[in-house]
Amino acid sequence: MKDQVQEFINQNEDEMYKQRRMFHRVPEVGFTEYITTYQIYQQLKGLSFDLFLGEDVMKADTRLGVPDPSVLFNSQERAKKFGVPDEFLDMISSGMTGVVARLDTGREGKHVALRFDIDGLPITESKDEEHLPHREGFHSTHSDEMHACGHDAHITIGLQVAQFIHEQQDKLTGTYTLIFQPAEEGGRGAKAIVDQGWLDKVDYFLSSHVGVKDLPVGTLGLSSSQFLASTKMDAEFRGKSAHAGLEPNEGQNALLAASATSLHLNGITRHKDGTTRINVGTIRAGSGRNIIADYGKIEFETRGETTVLDRYMEEEARRIVQATGQLYNVETNIEVKGKAINVACDEEVMSLVERAVQDGRYVKNVVPNVPLGASEDVTFMIDHVQQGGGKATFTIVPSPLAAGHHHPRFDFDERTLPVAIEAFLQTIIEISKS
Amino acid sequence: MKDQVQEFINQNEDEMYKQRRMFHRVPEVGFTEYITTYQIYQQLKGLSFDLFLGEDVMKADTRLGVPDPSVLFNSQERAKKFGVPDEFLDMISSGMTGVVARLDTGREGKHVALRFDIDGLPITESKDEEHLPHREGFHSTHSDEMHACGHDAHITIGLQVAQFIHEQQDKLTGTYTLIFQPAEEGGRGAKAIVDQGWLDKVDYFLSSHVGVKDLPVGTLGLSSSQFLASTKMDAEFRGKSAHAGLEPNEGQNALLAASATSLHLNGITRHKDGTTRINVGTIRAGSGRNIIADYGKIEFETRGETTVLDRYMEEEARRIVQATGQLYNVETNIEVKGKAINVACDEEVMSLVERAVQDGRYVKNVVPNVPLGASEDVTFMIDHVQQGGGKATFTIVPSPLAAGHHHPRFDFDERTLPVAIEAFLQTIIEISKS
Amino acid sequence: MKDQVQEFINQNEDEMYKQRRMFHRVPEVGFTEYITTYQIYQQLKGLSFDLFLGEDVMKADTRLGVPDPSVLFNSQERAKKFGVPDEFLDMISSGMTGVVARLDTGREGKHVALRFDIDGLPITESKDEEHLPHREGFHSTHSDEMHACGHDAHITIGLQVAQFIHEQQDKLTGTYTLIFQPAEEGGRGAKAIVDQGWLDKVDYFLSSHVGVKDLPVGTLGLSSSQFLASTKMDAEFRGKSAHAGLEPNEGQNALLAASATSLHLNGITRHKDGTTRINVGTIRAGSGRNIIADYGKIEFETRGETTVLDRYMEEEARRIVQATGQLYNVETNIEVKGKAINVACDEEVMSLVERAVQDGRYVKNVVPNVPLGASEDVTFMIDHVQQGGGKATFTIVPSPLAAGHHHPRFDFDERTLPVAIEAFLQTIIEISKS
Amino acid sequence: MKDQVQEFINQNEDEMYKQRRMFHRVPEVGFTEYITTYQIYQQLKGLSFDLFLGEDVMKADTRLGVPDPSVLFNSQERAKKFGVPDEFLDMISSGMTGVVARLDTGREGKHVALRFDIDGLPITESKDEEHLPHREGFHSTHSDEMHACGHDAHITIGLQVAQFIHEQQDKLTGTYTLIFQPAEEGGRGAKAIVDQGWLDKVDYFLSSHVGVKDLPVGTLGLSSSQFLASTKMDAEFRGKSAHAGLEPNEGQNALLAASATSLHLNGITRHKDGTTRINVGTIRAGSGRNIIADYGKIEFETRGETTVLDRYMEEEARRIVQATGQLYNVETNIEVKGKAINVACDEEVMSLVERAVQDGRYVKNVVPNVPLGASEDVTFMIDHVQQGGGKATFTIVPSPLAAGHHHPRFDFDERTLPVAIEAFLQTIIEISKS
Repeated sequence: MKDQVQEFINQNEDEMYKQRRMFHRVPEVGFTEYITTYQIYQQLKGLSFDLFLGEDVMKADTRLGVPDPSVLFNSQERAKKFGVPDEFLDMISSGMTGVVARLDTGREGKHVALRFDIDGLPITESKDEEHLPHREGFHSTHSDEMHACGHDAHITIGLQVAQFIHEQQDKLTGTYTLIFQPAEEGGRGAKAIVDQGWLDKVDYFLSSHVGVKDLPVGTLGLSSSQFLASTKMDAEFRGKSAHAGLEPNEGQNALLAASATSLHLNGITRHKDGTTRINVGTIRAGSGRNIIADYGKIEFETRGETTVLDRYMEEEARRIVQATGQLYNVETNIEVKGKAINVACDEEVMSLVERAVQDGRYVKNVVPNVPLGASEDVTFMIDHVQQGGGKATFTIVPSPLAAGHHHPRFDFDERTLPVAIEAFLQTIIEISKS
Repeated sequence: MKDQVQEFINQNEDEMYKQRRMFHRVPEVGFTEYITTYQIYQQLKGLSFDLFLGEDVMKADTRLGVPDPSVLFNSQERAKKFGVPDEFLDMISSGMTGVVARLDTGREGKHVALRFDIDGLPITESKDEEHLPHREGFHSTHSDEMHACGHDAHITIGLQVAQFIHEQQDKLTGTYTLIFQPAEEGGRGAKAIVDQGWLDKVDYFLSSHVGVKDLPVGTLGLSSSQFLASTKMDAEFRGKSAHAGLEPNEGQNALLAASATSLHLNGITRHKDGTTRINVGTIRAGSGRNIIADYGKIEFETRGETTVLDRYMEEEARRIVQATGQLYNVETNIEVKGKAINVACDEEVMSLVERAVQDGRYVKNVVPNVPLGASEDVTFMIDHVQQGGGKATFTIVPSPLAAGHHHPRFDFDERTLPVAIEAFLQTIIEISKS
Repeated sequence: MKDQVQEFINQNEDEMYKQRRMFHRVPEVGFTEYITTYQIYQQLKGLSFDLFLGEDVMKADTRLGVPDPSVLFNSQERAKKFGVPDEFLDMISSGMTGVVARLDTGREGKHVALRFDIDGLPITESKDEEHLPHREGFHSTHSDEMHACGHDAHITIGLQVAQFIHEQQDKLTGTYTLIFQPAEEGGRGAKAIVDQGWLDKVDYFLSSHVGVKDLPVGTLGLSSSQFLASTKMDAEFRGKSAHAGLEPNEGQNALLAASATSLHLNGITRHKDGTTRINVGTIRAGSGRNIIADYGKIEFETRGETTVLDRYMEEEARRIVQATGQLYNVETNIEVKGKAINVACDEEVMSLVERAVQDGRYVKNVVPNVPLGASEDVTFMIDHVQQGGGKATFTIVPSPLAAGHHHPRFDFDERTLPVAIEAFLQTIIEISKS
Repeated sequence: MKDQVQEFINQNEDEMYKQRRMFHRVPEVGFTEYITTYQIYQQLKGLSFDLFLGEDVMKADTRLGVPDPSVLFNSQERAKKFGVPDEFLDMISSGMTGVVARLDTGREGKHVALRFDIDGLPITESKDEEHLPHREGFHSTHSDEMHACGHDAHITIGLQVAQFIHEQQDKLTGTYTLIFQPAEEGGRGAKAIVDQGWLDKVDYFLSSHVGVKDLPVGTLGLSSSQFLASTKMDAEFRGKSAHAGLEPNEGQNALLAASATSLHLNGITRHKDGTTRINVGTIRAGSGRNIIADYGKIEFETRGETTVLDRYMEEEARRIVQATGQLYNVETNIEVKGKAINVACDEEVMSLVERAVQDGRYVKNVVPNVPLGASEDVTFMIDHVQQGGGKATFTIVPSPLAAGHHHPRFDFDERTLPVAIEAFLQTIIEISKS
């Protein structure tokens, strides 16, 4: 079957570039992927997979950081204008986006789960002439959203993998579960899918990320390490407004409290046991120049090389938010909006992938590991699979990058698509044979 | 004519309370007073005044802090829905709001200019049961705007004064210029009206503020002092975004720069020569939790008991913004959005007003001065009148206050309206006789 | 007797300049004025005054901010080397410095108390060629102490006043109490003298300050206003040390807590009701570069135009110290080290002084008031005298100044000495006649 | 000869504990080790080594962070009182402490250099009953200095190694250079010894640290990694003093500048490429509570897992110091006071040590590597030896610790002394045989 993979890719190569560019044009941030979910569903519905949507995909109440109803509503309205039918939107409304596709070959074999994340980022895409998506006309059509992390590639890879499994189902064994996951950014969607049971009794779990490291196209990282455990939090500050000229001392300044918290969070002491991170990503406070602000909010995240280190960061952050509140005599509260943990990939699957891609046409070189140095909620899935006795890896498909992940000019080399697809398909075949 | 004033007020008392409540329901922030301007115009157009709108009222390019076109557009659309005709809106579009009304009696006499400010504040009005405008059903109909500084009273006073002048024009002498000024808040509108020439060759200038001090209704402050000179500024911070987990050191953090600037501005040293103020009223930075913010903005203001003290504050602020930019390696720029200066009222007019209100029915007690302790761009008008040899005062009509100015529960006693109107009218008559 | 004053000054003018320069050479900070007390005592002991030292002068335990025993010990040792006899030092040891001199004329009359403060400042005097005390060789002989506030003048004035009273005692009436007060700087000595009863049953209280305002020599300010109420506090921070490279997270950083407290104190919001001040004057934290500091200390002070405003500042400061402790997880405590309050001088004494200096030879011009804009613990004395029905003023003897008070190059024009002495003596005579 | 090592240790065990305790009682901080140097010299002078002192040991002007002359003077005076002869002090005055001992066996062989650091820390030793040095009476006799990093052990080890070489010189080959290095803390002494040429043409270089990791006594780490590159810097801030009450705005506040710099340094962003550290260890600013501080100073250090990372930290720090100076309008300057770099130990020597300690009596267990996670200026020596073609390792002799390094209750298990000595001696023999 090795040859069929290459033939399949050869035939579909143009198609996959087009597909990726189509998704690139309509990025949607986490839990608002109404258009994206619809487009994935449209691609899958002609195939032999059982498809699941809405409540079947995720536990609604273990999602984290679901946007405000008004945001969900606006995105849904946008999807309507785009042409997504009302009856489809009804099935995935309130941010219940994403698709699970399952195919049982009917033949004894392994249960292989694959996960592809589908959300975009709240970044305004660059309109520099040098930015290829702009130059070649597949720039984001949503003004403040962008596929700046390659999830457009991940969707495409998932759809191509689905197509191949569909075509070759008679030659494959076991069961395939393809998870098109919403809201990976911020660590918000994976846990709710795990809680719905999709990762129970999985023998092999595979997921992947394009980019990450600037290596020549054709390189495959058999695993990733340095998944930073992470906690996403919002802190709110409630003070008292007052006229800034007439009675400044009557105010309780929520803006200064939010600002000081940002600085003090940034100063959390490094930990002897390893890498930690802190970022206050957004701050909003105050309503008018001459009014002492009675409300402020920051969105921030901590990370740690291990789950213990992230807990250290989270606890420091909680103390700082509370104490800074007292410093400015304002009330504070903290809400957890997302989580990711730390895991290790299984050597066994790494070897299996390595065997599978030997003599590959697109995969020309393997490296055992590419450290991620970032957070990924795929860790909840890997952890669950491993707890159940299954094996998992998270491969990396490096690419020269125009600019780093989450940058307005982020862009990867599209020729990573065949590399990633070849790796997935050959691995599936390798497992199927085992 | 003294008696005619009391008769006039007596007849119009109910009407003036209704009028004030009508204006209270439709607050519009500076330069978006499309509905307000229209309603004032409607009230005035049946009278004998020459009315001026748009470019006739203000020099467009010396206005400060004009909102973004999209904000102006939305307010104009709202005005359309409210029923303001397109042709009227065309005359005042792009934020050229406000009305000037002029009546020349044809009889030799003084040129008296009166100024009434008409804008609301970006404050969400309280829905507490105790808040009278809510309880009595004249709560703001605009979700984030509120007449929280009594300008609804000022408009009403102005319209009543206009009505009286119109009715009594045959008994009055000289010329009357009534200025319904937009965008007092933030010190943004007065200068552009001065620049259009409306304060040239004015003999007497009168303006007034309700509230300010919690004294019994019936008190009149013959003048105000402690006009704080003020500068309104926006500072922007432009850094570089980066993935907060993968490459934190690659970012140039505009959020931390904006936050640190807020704290450092707040720490500008007090000045030996008198009262100063600093307030950072709003902060906005960052687009996503896990992205290092590449943009931040603060809106702030300085004040000083004298123009020199405000200049000290402004210079300190400029140094701090620039240095904090260097501290975080981000680019900064500052834009001035509003200005007010410091002036002194003329004793001569104070005496004149005092004589005028003797034996008043509504004015029961005078105090020579109520310190304002805040900024008012009426100072540009007073200064210009005084430069031209005219005399000016800014009277205060105190009232018990439910909550301070610019507070979501701000409310004054409506019975200040007849007090203020009596003072204006008797003063006009006193001047007319002189 | 008017003429005798002028004659007295004329005869003693050279002597008083010498005397002042002698005191200038041996500045001693508050409660360490061992040499100064001895020298004052030596000058007074040949006169007809009853002299009081040590426990007779002050209540030991209501002194504030007494230096550490080791500091007192070193100063006492220095005084020994200087030649102050052991038996004298025994009477004033443990910081019980200062002298009270009392003369009862035996004739009915008023009880007049006069106060002269005697301490120096912890400032290293300038060695600029332009600095007159350096150029003319009477520079401080104590390396880190300096008479940078003119108390050397005050001592001299007090001694001259004592000499005159002694000489003219037969022509004077009532009783004279001359208080040579230690530790004015920091508001530490006056209260303890009041508590000893020296200001009970005083009819007239007079004290004075040279400098303050840059007016021509010969000017006399009949009173002072704007005594800032003030609280002097020390805050200590106790954390936990740790190796900064090996285990940074194990420390509790007292240095950062002290630093952050300094910044946050500096940001206490201005108060609508008037002038306030905050200064963190010293910070000390940490023992080694690579050790996380387990101890830090700041010395700071608040001030307010009124006692209420100072209380606002003190309460804000207490909250900030405590909250910043929590922010850095360190223990904090605050100790009050000094206090001054706000008072008003009596018009009656001002008039009396004005009459007294009419046709003065050295006083050429009077101004009713020179605002102090600083703190003075003479306020405790004035307040106590006024509580008991007496009258008080604090006159100002302005001088062109080479540099401001508390500056390493501070210097006043010595010709203010005859001005001040004439004012005191003529006032004493005026009172004596009344 | 293996057996002779065990016999030697057996005979000297009591002596070595006594020796270590003697050194523990007289800790001296870097470049003030006058007593320590003398005591080492006394122990060595009866042996067959050539001894070198003063200018022979170090290049005077490439030492970093030499204390002020007054500090050196006081320490020298203390040494005199202790009984160190004047003529000895003359040879090592001005901080030229330390001893080099060289023995040429006359037989062909390797040149082995060994380094033992001898300085204490500016820490006040704990007087807790639980603190063994206190309980057993060998507590530091210097009030603010302490051997809190085990250099007292290092000296003892060095002296025992010297004794053994002396005794067994006839059976050994090659040359031995024993370096008793001053001022390791802060990375200040090693470079100046390298610059004097002592590490030229060295075949094997050995040094060691006791403690570091809490493992059972008897463990030997064959090498260390994670030498953090480090830069030690002082920053000074020069502003302008002013009276904090009278003219606060006239000051340029060096205290706030120093405080803000401390906070901003602490907030230097973590680097993607690895571990970094920042610590502001001391701050001193201001001379009086009511004077705006005109001078401030901080002592701080940066570290990085690699030399490149430390350079990143140093550059950030320099920018922050400068920008904060501008923020407060004060002048700044930075001086480098110490440096350490990052190196890797040689596998070849690690294997050699491993072979040597096989069947050891005191060394019961080896681990290939104990990460240091701190800075050591031994790195300059290792680097120089490696540049010249030699091989080097830095072994670790772990011990259960009462409290971490640089803690007032730091204490290691003395039974690490025979472990360390056995490892050194057996390694020397192993090299000698090769």
